[in-house]
Amino acid sequence: MLGTMPRRINVACVSYFDAASAEPLHPAARAAFLSAMDEGWADPARLYHDGRRAGVLLDAARETVASVLGVRPDEVSFTGSGTQAAQLALLGTLGGRRRVGAHAVVSAVEHSSVLHAAELHEAKGGEVTRTPVDRTGRVDVEALAAALRPDTAAVAAQSANHEVGTLQPLSEVAERCAAAGIPLVVDAAQSVGRVAVPDGWSVLAASAHKWGGPAGVGLLVVRKGTRYVSPLPYDEREARRVPGFVNVPAIVAAAVALGAVATGDDTENRRLSALVDKIRTRVPETVPDVEVVGDPVHRLPHIVTFSCLYVDGEALLHALDRAGFAVSSGSSCTSSTLTPSHVLAAMGVLTQGNIRVSLPQGTPDAEVDRFLAVLPGIVADLRAVTGVPSAAPGGHAAAEGVHDEAAGEPDLVLDTLGRRCPIPVIELAKHIGEVPEGGVVAVLSDDEAARLDVPAWCEMTGNTYLGERPGGPGGVAYLVRRA
Amino acid sequence: MLGTMPRRINVACVSYFDAASAEPLHPAARAAFLSAMDEGWADPARLYHDGRRAGVLLDAARETVASVLGVRPDEVSFTGSGTQAAQLALLGTLGGRRRVGAHAVVSAVEHSSVLHAAELHEAKGGEVTRTPVDRTGRVDVEALAAALRPDTAAVAAQSANHEVGTLQPLSEVAERCAAAGIPLVVDAAQSVGRVAVPDGWSVLAASAHKWGGPAGVGLLVVRKGTRYVSPLPYDEREARRVPGFVNVPAIVAAAVALGAVATGDDTENRRLSALVDKIRTRVPETVPDVEVVGDPVHRLPHIVTFSCLYVDGEALLHALDRAGFAVSSGSSCTSSTLTPSHVLAAMGVLTQGNIRVSLPQGTPDAEVDRFLAVLPGIVADLRAVTGVPSAAPGGHAAAEGVHDEAAGEPDLVLDTLGRRCPIPVIELAKHIGEVPEGGVVAVLSDDEAARLDVPAWCEMTGNTYLGERPGGPGGVAYLVRRA
Repeated sequence: MLGTMPRRINVACVSYFDAASAEPLHPAARAAFLSAMDEGWADPARLYHDGRRAGVLLDAARETVASVLGVRPDEVSFTGSGTQAAQLALLGTLGGRRRVGAHAVVSAVEHSSVLHAAELHEAKGGEVTRTPVDRTGRVDVEALAAALRPDTAAVAAQSANHEVGTLQPLSEVAERCAAAGIPLVVDAAQSVGRVAVPDGWSVLAASAHKWGGPAGVGLLVVRKGTRYVSPLPYDEREARRVPGFVNVPAIVAAAVALGAVATGDDTENRRLSALVDKIRTRVPETVPDVEVVGDPVHRLPHIVTFSCLYVDGEALLHALDRAGFAVSSGSSCTSSTLTPSHVLAAMGVLTQGNIRVSLPQGTPDAEVDRFLAVLPGIVADLRAVTGVPSAAPGGHAAAEGVHDEAAGEPDLVLDTLGRRCPIPVIELAKHIGEVPEGGVVAVLSDDEAARLDVPAWCEMTGNTYLGERPGGPGGVAYLVRRA
Repeated sequence: MLGTMPRRINVACVSYFDAASAEPLHPAARAAFLSAMDEGWADPARLYHDGRRAGVLLDAARETVASVLGVRPDEVSFTGSGTQAAQLALLGTLGGRRRVGAHAVVSAVEHSSVLHAAELHEAKGGEVTRTPVDRTGRVDVEALAAALRPDTAAVAAQSANHEVGTLQPLSEVAERCAAAGIPLVVDAAQSVGRVAVPDGWSVLAASAHKWGGPAGVGLLVVRKGTRYVSPLPYDEREARRVPGFVNVPAIVAAAVALGAVATGDDTENRRLSALVDKIRTRVPETVPDVEVVGDPVHRLPHIVTFSCLYVDGEALLHALDRAGFAVSSGSSCTSSTLTPSHVLAAMGVLTQGNIRVSLPQGTPDAEVDRFLAVLPGIVADLRAVTGVPSAAPGGHAAAEGVHDEAAGEPDLVLDTLGRRCPIPVIELAKHIGEVPEGGVVAVLSDDEAARLDVPAWCEMTGNTYLGERPGGPGGVAYLVRRA
């Protein structure tokens, strides 16, 4: 009988490592949510008893949030999501400065919600400058300052990057904005409830389900003196910034969660940060051909991101899922658009086999240890399927090749047109040994990821990336000189 | 000891009669919400187990809603609120027809969320025609059809009025729109989950907390073949119509509530409708000088609205609240703008002492009986304070006065400048006996409500409203001839 029993799947052993997407609901928030469903369900604008009771709960929630953020309660509006908050923050600030101009400056690594709002601004005739980051994902303050113009209506900069964890130089950005008299809009979704957000911003957005509150609640905080003109239809609720019935039960739960996590006690952050350090150290030791990205020191306590050469990101996600790990990926094959994460692209780092681990509060050390134990085998298994040599020609210790833009005719052309990440790089690794040392391989590809991954492969293997030129129908030839 | 005990307030005896604002959470929805908080909290777009599980719940919720509405699941998008849904419905439809023109037609009695969206459209250069309603609040189909133009991009019409309950002639409106090839946007917030919405619309909006779902969920339904261009930033979620993390637990609860109330069994509707009939009949019998408004037959089962002459709406709300009744009011004194409900204004009916009773599912008959028992005393007490004669001169049975626009100089001028509703009408009632029969009283007022309430008072008392002319600083003189 035993032999025919279905294998028991122990759901409880799933390790959820995607807190940067959604932190599980805090137990205190769950209890508050339930209670507020009974006490705060009515319209807080109504004059009758149930309405007034909802109003009292809403006021108390606003006080809690304001107190944690160090702002005035009347500066806080609750939105229907973090995305709505971030988009209103940018568009409302731009709207308030229409007379100054229609130029916006945003960092290239903002959350897609902010970048999409910037695109809408452009589509309506505005202008947007996207400023670069360094290889750790850190905003280039000088480049951002240089982008400021007399007609710049607003600057948008995140407090910390949501994909690689790098803390942004927000105080420096705020100084430059203040000097130019330009409001700074901060997407603080990854920071609020975890780490302090430096002062100096004019408008801030955050998302409750990133700190253990429920979905359906965002924060839009507009400091006094900041001119804000809503892009949405008029509504007298929420300081005229967010139309619609106010979702008091969810807001109460969000505020309770924030109060519960923003205690000022840094113990849990330090513990999670040590776990992240462990991942940052151990993964490159146990998995060959891995690039760990993001700032190793100036970072959020709970996020770490790395990429594995020759590995299909979606296959890696699925294999980790089967092993009981919930993580996310910025690889192109895991997005519906088949383009790699714009954050990894702006950093100029490898995108294939990309994994973001973001640890919820209370993650047991043992779960991270189990992750570190199973990862090398999972990556090796996936690589075995595609038949990549464990150390590709060029070798990790190879001398830096001579960069030569005038490559002339390649010695070998690899046509990978129509093939998706990580195939172009796998083909490159498999065949580069067929050309003599110093010889040139051209990889023809129409896959967006190749533009990032071929140069990243060269850097990781000691070969030399020579650049790109048109190649094949709709494709690009990426030229590599064998070391 | 007993004598010193605090009076026990029995909260359970509050009769909540404001379902048109928010129906209390359905017990089945509450249970589903709790369960989905555990099972559906992750991002449904994620590939890992918790994400897929959330995705399955979301798909099932969409199927339920589509099935109830008789549409395809891929036509249904979930929004963050009913207001967001209604505003996206109108603005997205206008956006999709930009090449046709920028003219919109909306009924004058749409929900404020739709009217505010129309105002935003105007502020951005669009044009809006607001079409009239009759004295029952019913959309004038001929007037609406006459407003359609070659450059009309969309028509917005509600399924039923949210303040007076009148069902709109939606099929007739849809026919006219179809004949002109113009998409019809329907705000069905008061109907979905209660009564069927006639076919023929292109885009529909609804709100979960009107049918017993939680706050934070709206429906935006766009029929195939309708061109829709979102006014919001791009997002691939929810058919690219609603940016932001999808609130699966609340959506699951909303769908469960809809499935629970939209059973096709009309028993509860008929019971509530009989209770509304009882209110419509009994209130004018027991309270003098009352106007019951809205269509008595072609109406929602659960809404009834009436107005009481000489009564301050806010005072009436508070008195009913103290008696344990939660109702809403369209009187000017109960709004922050000090203007009466735009619905009552468009209908041209009395606005003072206005009360909307909207019965949640399961309202016990005894609660309505208790309401009918206490209302006459409450209104009489409020009138006693202001000292209005129980039957004002003119009398209910007075002959229709002769309408005379050329009133000449009034025999008496009542200066009520700076006094709010219901004072101008109370002063009129108190002093009209001081002029001879056929004499003219001018009421000077700068209160918006007087424009509606003085003519309504004339109609109710048999006196003759002669019209208005400028009067006093910032005011208007309303001229009344004593019968």
